[in-house]
Amino acid sequence: MFITFEGIEGAGKTTVIQGIAKILEERGSSVLVTREPGGSTFGTSLRSLLLSCDSDLDELAELYLFLADRAQHVSKVLRPALDRGDIVLCDRYIDSTTAYQGYARGLDQDELHTLNTIASRGLKPDLTLVLDLPVEEGLARAAKRRSLLQSDAEARFDLEKLSFHQAVAAGFHAIAASEPQRVRLVDAARSKEEVVRACMAEIDQLAKRL
Amino acid sequence: MFITFEGIEGAGKTTVIQGIAKILEERGSSVLVTREPGGSTFGTSLRSLLLSCDSDLDELAELYLFLADRAQHVSKVLRPALDRGDIVLCDRYIDSTTAYQGYARGLDQDELHTLNTIASRGLKPDLTLVLDLPVEEGLARAAKRRSLLQSDAEARFDLEKLSFHQAVAAGFHAIAASEPQRVRLVDAARSKEEVVRACMAEIDQLAKRL
Repeated sequence: MFITFEGIEGAGKTTVIQGIAKILEERGSSVLVTREPGGSTFGTSLRSLLLSCDSDLDELAELYLFLADRAQHVSKVLRPALDRGDIVLCDRYIDSTTAYQGYARGLDQDELHTLNTIASRGLKPDLTLVLDLPVEEGLARAAKRRSLLQSDAEARFDLEKLSFHQAVAAGFHAIAASEPQRVRLVDAARSKEEVVRACMAEIDQLAKRL
Repeated sequence: MFITFEGIEGAGKTTVIQGIAKILEERGSSVLVTREPGGSTFGTSLRSLLLSCDSDLDELAELYLFLADRAQHVSKVLRPALDRGDIVLCDRYIDSTTAYQGYARGLDQDELHTLNTIASRGLKPDLTLVLDLPVEEGLARAAKRRSLLQSDAEARFDLEKLSFHQAVAAGFHAIAASEPQRVRLVDAARSKEEVVRACMAEIDQLAKRL
């Protein structure tokens, strides 16, 4: 099972994924928790380049970096984990490229689709859970996190303007509408426990289908 | 004028470019010397990732990193320099992707062409000089350079096997044969002065055509 988690900044993906991994492991499953960018050893360097506020990144350079990170992640981490039968929980994947670089940055959607397919070698998630909450609420949570960490190190996207984040959110909604079987919206404006429970219900449904 | 220099490892590109820049500057031209990977500020980090022997790089990840570097270089360095009227001398560009990732790594040529065109936003060199010499001689020079520098830091490609470098050389020959107007082979198995003179003859011919 390859499950990806998507959503705007501050949607709570990291916390929810940890909650789900705990439940799955308690049930005896072998679980790999990973993320993009930065899920491979070499991706860690790319993650700092991509998320650092110091990067004066051209938008195509940004796109190709995400795809380089994805190609490495798929071939060195995701495929091997799926081949050995792990349940893979991945924080962001191809739909983030579609939402951020496509819907928000305005790059050509067909071109993105081609590039995404090449970079991922056609590996698609079995299930994608979009943690959905109002943009203002996500941004407020992200700001709080930065203030707790006392760090803006990964804030390049956080600090984009409101209309950018609204376009990202609209992108995720459009993706969910176009692939309702694979992509589910989960209301993330609830307690962590409730969100984890809603996600687990979707995962259990998937397990029945597979 | 946008002039690129190509060739196998140890072909002498760096030395020859410096010689040419000196002549052009003495004639009163404004010259920008740059390179790929690593011609932009942010590209410097990518250069170490790409050329370090420690990188266990997937071949598609490698390709996308080169393209990210190129997109950034074109938009932040090459285009601005050409717009202000500089003569740009660039050490490696799109033909290296075709020769290394296409001919030597075996990635699909049509796909590479599309990706190269997107990443470079269609910016093609006015003239490409391929410094041509036997693969064994180039590798011997590259080995000598590493021993002088006492460093293998940028040796990931140097240390590929002989057949790899032969495929790269064959790739450059094929590119020169398919675009004889833009791409010229220059015999690089001569003294630095002779190679610089041969390159300058091609550049002066280009200047007459433009």
